[in-house]
Amino acid sequence: MHDIIVIGGGPAGLTAAVYGLRADKSVLVLEKESFGGQITYSPKVENIPGFVSLSGAEFADHLIEQALAQGAEFESVCVSGITVGKSAENGQNLFEVHTDEGSFYGRSVIIATGAKHRLLGLPKEEGFIGNGISFCAVCDGAFYSGATVGVVGGGNSALQEAVLLADLVKKLYIFQDMDFLTGEKKLQEALFAHDNVEVITGVHVKEYLGEDTLSGVVTEDKEGNRRETALDGLFLAVGLIPQNEPFTNVLKLNDRGYADVNEFCRTEVPGVFVAGDCRSKFIRQVTTAAADGAVAALAAVSYVEGRG
Amino acid sequence: MHDIIVIGGGPAGLTAAVYGLRADKSVLVLEKESFGGQITYSPKVENIPGFVSLSGAEFADHLIEQALAQGAEFESVCVSGITVGKSAENGQNLFEVHTDEGSFYGRSVIIATGAKHRLLGLPKEEGFIGNGISFCAVCDGAFYSGATVGVVGGGNSALQEAVLLADLVKKLYIFQDMDFLTGEKKLQEALFAHDNVEVITGVHVKEYLGEDTLSGVVTEDKEGNRRETALDGLFLAVGLIPQNEPFTNVLKLNDRGYADVNEFCRTEVPGVFVAGDCRSKFIRQVTTAAADGAVAALAAVSYVEGRG
Repeated sequence: MHDIIVIGGGPAGLTAAVYGLRADKSVLVLEKESFGGQITYSPKVENIPGFVSLSGAEFADHLIEQALAQGAEFESVCVSGITVGKSAENGQNLFEVHTDEGSFYGRSVIIATGAKHRLLGLPKEEGFIGNGISFCAVCDGAFYSGATVGVVGGGNSALQEAVLLADLVKKLYIFQDMDFLTGEKKLQEALFAHDNVEVITGVHVKEYLGEDTLSGVVTEDKEGNRRETALDGLFLAVGLIPQNEPFTNVLKLNDRGYADVNEFCRTEVPGVFVAGDCRSKFIRQVTTAAADGAVAALAAVSYVEGRG
Repeated sequence: MHDIIVIGGGPAGLTAAVYGLRADKSVLVLEKESFGGQITYSPKVENIPGFVSLSGAEFADHLIEQALAQGAEFESVCVSGITVGKSAENGQNLFEVHTDEGSFYGRSVIIATGAKHRLLGLPKEEGFIGNGISFCAVCDGAFYSGATVGVVGGGNSALQEAVLLADLVKKLYIFQDMDFLTGEKKLQEALFAHDNVEVITGVHVKEYLGEDTLSGVVTEDKEGNRRETALDGLFLAVGLIPQNEPFTNVLKLNDRGYADVNEFCRTEVPGVFVAGDCRSKFIRQVTTAAADGAVAALAAVSYVEGRG
């Protein structure tokens, strides 16, 4: 029985572990893929407080080292669900966390499973992530100063990416599968105020070009006409998939699948907390995820100590 | 005229600068004391994501280097207030920031002035901060494992500090000037469940003992009886003073003087944003301040670009 079970080993989960451990609680972190989370895919990061420039994988290594130094236990398992029980001793909730390698038991649970970027499902896609394909203009846009860049998508997220990029790049293409942009009017106006932006609607991206690094895309319109566009980088903004499906019995999800909790990171189930990209929030960055981790951990510490 | 003027050069303000600059906005950071903020007083920090262990001053140096590398401008000035004006060009708010060295002008303002710990005002106090005197059990408690430690204060903050410390230290004294503790019942119960805690009410701390490092305190009760207590560390929890006084014309303050804004960091004055310890929030840590900086900066970028 651990005091705190953290589900998800990204910046939110690992920061939660550090805070829980420093309050003298036992902490087990469960992760199904790679400890460090989505940031490990970013080859160069310059907006994490205190790090002038490093790779996402390097940052992840630091975080992992930090959590281990504080005494965190790690398990590489895939969580399939949570069962809520009661302690006979004090009436508080206890949790059984089900995984592909058996169950783990905790006095509290922090769900920090993050969100995955939706991909296009094309050949070579995984290899190009971090080598020309990016998901975050706030994070990576500055690396494409003066370059030719594409954005895939036409909703609010895509247009927000595009507006940031338009200020930085020489030429920006927007590839949208529908015949119009769906993002809000103000964003469209901001975008069209730039003369370096070309919006191409009614096309699907069908192929990635390049060997080790992305060098362009092939798009196809409804008539089947194909066009090659040379690119230095491509930002995918076709949606995020919060990783909350196994937890619908303990989480209230909003209409986009995010856990509907505010900055206090508390759910309606006492002892269950949510941190990071899997909750509803304004921006999803390493620093906002880490902040949630700290908040959720201190809330969990308070719960485990019987202070609610 | 700068796109963004950041008032306060701690983790919130410097992270805001990094995010604003990476969105290609000009950013000026104003700071009245030392760039880096309150964290510079912590000799050893182990809960900042990605840093296993470093001093607060080292962390501050990294943050400063990072903001400068992105192109931040710094001014060491004391801000006395803000005047809100209107742009003839687009009707948006413009801001004159008044300082002891003249005015600076911005299209948006991020107030990230932090909060100061109330001190006891005794001789040698400044020198003992970071050398035996601390303000944050979450941050520094683990360094006093097995030691003898005091807490000054009896309110919720003091008891929260004390509950965390009681799990870690050999012996914990609470020095409270009133005849009873004012913190909530649950916290008092959690505290009294420990047998290593001694609460001394009705006493004032009158003197700090020690040369370079604090070694104890002298307390005095109402009858004038003095008592020496040997200590390895002392946590002051007699209140925080949010640094919001110059900004009452643009900020709505809560009854404790904090800017009454939520995690979106927006105020009721378009173009004015608040980040970090000076706003109402659950926990005040480097990582939560930095998260606010990122959020406030992206909101300011959106405002400056006419997207509200």
